[in-house]
Amino acid sequence: MKHVLSVCDIKDEVEELIDIAEKFKNGKIKEKVLKDKVLAMIFEKPSTRTRVSFEVAVLQLGGNALYLPSSELQLGRGELIADTAKVMSRYVDGIMIRANRHKDVIELAKHSTIPVINGLTDEEHPCQALADMQTIKEYKGGFNIKLAFVGDGNNVCNSLILISSILGIDISVASPKGYEPSNKIVNKALKIAKKTGAKINITSDAIEAVKGADVVYTDVWISMGQENERKTRLKAFKKYQVNKKLMSHAKEDAIFMHCLPAVRGEETTSDVIDGPNSVVWDQAENRLHTQKAILYKIFKEP
Amino acid sequence: MKHVLSVCDIKDEVEELIDIAEKFKNGKIKEKVLKDKVLAMIFEKPSTRTRVSFEVAVLQLGGNALYLPSSELQLGRGELIADTAKVMSRYVDGIMIRANRHKDVIELAKHSTIPVINGLTDEEHPCQALADMQTIKEYKGGFNIKLAFVGDGNNVCNSLILISSILGIDISVASPKGYEPSNKIVNKALKIAKKTGAKINITSDAIEAVKGADVVYTDVWISMGQENERKTRLKAFKKYQVNKKLMSHAKEDAIFMHCLPAVRGEETTSDVIDGPNSVVWDQAENRLHTQKAILYKIFKEP
Amino acid sequence: MKHVLSVCDIKDEVEELIDIAEKFKNGKIKEKVLKDKVLAMIFEKPSTRTRVSFEVAVLQLGGNALYLPSSELQLGRGELIADTAKVMSRYVDGIMIRANRHKDVIELAKHSTIPVINGLTDEEHPCQALADMQTIKEYKGGFNIKLAFVGDGNNVCNSLILISSILGIDISVASPKGYEPSNKIVNKALKIAKKTGAKINITSDAIEAVKGADVVYTDVWISMGQENERKTRLKAFKKYQVNKKLMSHAKEDAIFMHCLPAVRGEETTSDVIDGPNSVVWDQAENRLHTQKAILYKIFKEP
Repeated sequence: MKHVLSVCDIKDEVEELIDIAEKFKNGKIKEKVLKDKVLAMIFEKPSTRTRVSFEVAVLQLGGNALYLPSSELQLGRGELIADTAKVMSRYVDGIMIRANRHKDVIELAKHSTIPVINGLTDEEHPCQALADMQTIKEYKGGFNIKLAFVGDGNNVCNSLILISSILGIDISVASPKGYEPSNKIVNKALKIAKKTGAKINITSDAIEAVKGADVVYTDVWISMGQENERKTRLKAFKKYQVNKKLMSHAKEDAIFMHCLPAVRGEETTSDVIDGPNSVVWDQAENRLHTQKAILYKIFKEP
Repeated sequence: MKHVLSVCDIKDEVEELIDIAEKFKNGKIKEKVLKDKVLAMIFEKPSTRTRVSFEVAVLQLGGNALYLPSSELQLGRGELIADTAKVMSRYVDGIMIRANRHKDVIELAKHSTIPVINGLTDEEHPCQALADMQTIKEYKGGFNIKLAFVGDGNNVCNSLILISSILGIDISVASPKGYEPSNKIVNKALKIAKKTGAKINITSDAIEAVKGADVVYTDVWISMGQENERKTRLKAFKKYQVNKKLMSHAKEDAIFMHCLPAVRGEETTSDVIDGPNSVVWDQAENRLHTQKAILYKIFKEP
Repeated sequence: MKHVLSVCDIKDEVEELIDIAEKFKNGKIKEKVLKDKVLAMIFEKPSTRTRVSFEVAVLQLGGNALYLPSSELQLGRGELIADTAKVMSRYVDGIMIRANRHKDVIELAKHSTIPVINGLTDEEHPCQALADMQTIKEYKGGFNIKLAFVGDGNNVCNSLILISSILGIDISVASPKGYEPSNKIVNKALKIAKKTGAKINITSDAIEAVKGADVVYTDVWISMGQENERKTRLKAFKKYQVNKKLMSHAKEDAIFMHCLPAVRGEETTSDVIDGPNSVVWDQAENRLHTQKAILYKIFKEP
């Protein structure tokens, strides 16, 4: 495990990483594995949660983080990504990058002699998926569950499908036509599922997806950069709101998850996200612990 | 003392905080009370002094600060303040916020399980007021003084009135019609003054305010975000410039104060702010010491 | 040596600084000379290399750096530079500044009681020049060499001429008419050269400059802020591209240098910058070591 660009890069370490994250949460690991180390954090899109949770993780591990907004780097235009990778490799010990295009992150990793961690691209959000699994394990005791994702088949959804296939989860994704998760990802997951026994169901029927679910997960309908598609998207996703009625089709003790930020009245409603079955704040907190686990696994001396 | 949103939140601790600040200035406190702690610093308006003095304070106390410009948080629109508060409470140990609207800071504190410090809002600037009082104590030996504030009855003025009422200071504020300090604040201060013996005089006559003063204080006429009111404001404040002539009505050894940045030729003149009675650089320095005092008081183990 | 605004400010220390830089590179100096110290880094223009290499240098020396983009300081308009200098001197231990106008940096240093380091102005780039010399020493064993600079007689070129004059280097600069290095700088260098035996040749003939050179150096044709001159500049610099053909006039083992970022197809070509004689990544890395040397020399207790 050098780079973490996709959930697939941690395929063999998912459960170990969750274990490590739990130990961090319980204060059982105190090693400062990032002592005298610096992580560059490149952001093509701003983000509160990813930025704060990563920077705090790095600090708590004894290191330092450099926050580098894209405006100062212009990845993908101007300076070549390969050049940025080579120069950064001379200065810092690792790179966390939130990029618009997944292929830019792959190019960055290809030319870096230091580890690169994907902090969100148009294709995947592996750090989020790992935090989600820690949260599910906390609330459901393990992964013998049905997970429903309702909404946009986006990067968060992609990583959720992949990690579910690895952990043998029964995942059901309900998206409107035209907003399904990527075929490439689903096919990759189906291949993994053959070995793990995971079930992957892609549907356009929200009720079908949620029926009997232990976990119901959604994300915003309009992500950063899609503001001009607002009208079309609101219409397309209209029937995919995770409200009390939809939740009634899930198990009674089903938990509600959301990677935040949330727009109440769109993809979910206050009675759900602010209700007793919502675990979104614990889920957000687990970003911190799982990212420490990733950093620990990468940087701990062998 | 958990949150510091208003001068009123430190009513019972003002003198103790100034004592602590003096100890920091003299190198008598060396405890690293922020060791392994992180302060988030949210800025809706940029600021050199507040940002640098707070970040250095945090570092010197052994902690780390995250500088979070509003463009990455969008407090008050987009993500709910309550949500930001809940998430930040999971990641960091405290929040310093410079916000446009005081009510947003109150909302943030309401939903935070961690301490929130007001680094300037449209209503108050408690950290500035505390630094001002340390400076007055340094130069005047105590608070048995007459303090004149000449100019815009803004956030700085509001906090100055409140802290004066707490310390029993005789304060006189001269503002043009329409730019007086808020009634709500003055009434609060008058109530406190009944117990402390402070005198609070609001006038439109600059000479009356300055007459016999030990301290003359002013601030810019056009604050950030008021650039379009420039013409109207220049006209309204014309007679409120703190120049040598106006200073001649104060005591001979009266000191001149300003929270900076200053616009020479507008609210004051170079012969005053760069003259022998100006204490503005010491006043700026004291931001560092008083903020360390606030952080110390909040975070020191009981 | 207090401020480092120009190469001339380190005239007597250039070789010592390179020695110190080599010791840092070889891990022979471990002293944390910036322990409990804070360096403010003011950027009027963004920069990956300068920012990251300086911040990492500060962290590795045990200190902390505050990244302050100009948008939050407005040097040269708004607040007076003198005021910024006086306030910063109360909060931090040193200032690194990347400014548009060299005279602003001189003004800043004049009013600062703390050391000021030039991280690039329109006139000079002393930190780059020092890293360049460390690189030349690494590859050529010393400074008994011919150095050719081909292209824009800009800040990088100016500092290269000055440092060459100090080290007794035979430097030849080829620039198109109208883009020659500043007369002021060349005259200063000629004066120094009289004592050191350096040769300084300014020409418009790229082949003449490169003939027999040990080192061929170039920089972008269009710097930040010159985008509107693009057409004129492309035309003017057309014959100054450092490509394989031009390199064939240099010594066979001549190294190629570039301060980066580079635009392949403009000032150089991929077969040169990505070829076996290019030392640009080592040159970039040496920014880190030489900046540590500068900080060490300034802040080490006497």
